[in-house]
Amino acid sequence: MPEPEKIREIIDQYTGLFSAGDRDAWLALWHQDATMEDPVGTEVRRGRDAIAEFWDSGAGSSGAQLERVSPVLVPTPNDCSFLMNVKVPLGDEELVMPAIDVMTLDDDGLITSQRAFFDTGG
Amino acid sequence: MPEPEKIREIIDQYTGLFSAGDRDAWLALWHQDATMEDPVGTEVRRGRDAIAEFWDSGAGSSGAQLERVSPVLVPTPNDCSFLMNVKVPLGDEELVMPAIDVMTLDDDGLITSQRAFFDTGG
Repeated sequence: MPEPEKIREIIDQYTGLFSAGDRDAWLALWHQDATMEDPVGTEVRRGRDAIAEFWDSGAGSSGAQLERVSPVLVPTPNDCSFLMNVKVPLGDEELVMPAIDVMTLDDDGLITSQRAFFDTGG
Repeated sequence: MPEPEKIREIIDQYTGLFSAGDRDAWLALWHQDATMEDPVGTEVRRGRDAIAEFWDSGAGSSGAQLERVSPVLVPTPNDCSFLMNVKVPLGDEELVMPAIDVMTLDDDGLITSQRAFFDTGG
């Protein structure tokens, strides 16, 4: 089972690789059968291929930077959550959107599920 | 369905009433059949009576103050999450523990489930 410190390293890779636009390395953090609900309330994507579609449909090419704000909170060796700011470039401006990710990871440290909480304006 | 602004008011009541030690008003925020997993990884408490036991077993009399740090993030009219600092008095000192709560609420704005993420030192 991954130690809390190992989970923190994985989350730093998750935010860092996303921000760097490193598609393949970012996708390799996910389990082959992982689920993603981003944002919460939308259809759950199932499997690494569906998560690659999420990236390819714009998330990965938006230039968004994920800046973790809170510590990575680790209640069990397979659960974590953290607050981040999603910084999206908009011309000369920058949209800053707070978001909380809730994740499970397997014993090898692969992400098995992710749910993202942010304001959808609804 | 509760509006996002209504959910934010409920969460302010949740943190405020807990911090004030107002047991009955705090318990009234929960649905009769609500579940609580606090922290994540422990046995799920089911029903308002079990949540009252959580309060009576020490959570409610600890003098802990819940100070919300992030906005209340509301992806759907029935889901929210937020980061807070749990401040626990320890003699002349104060323990400050960051925690993320993930909640569902029903259409009347009653809390139907809660899961708490914080470091358990595991």
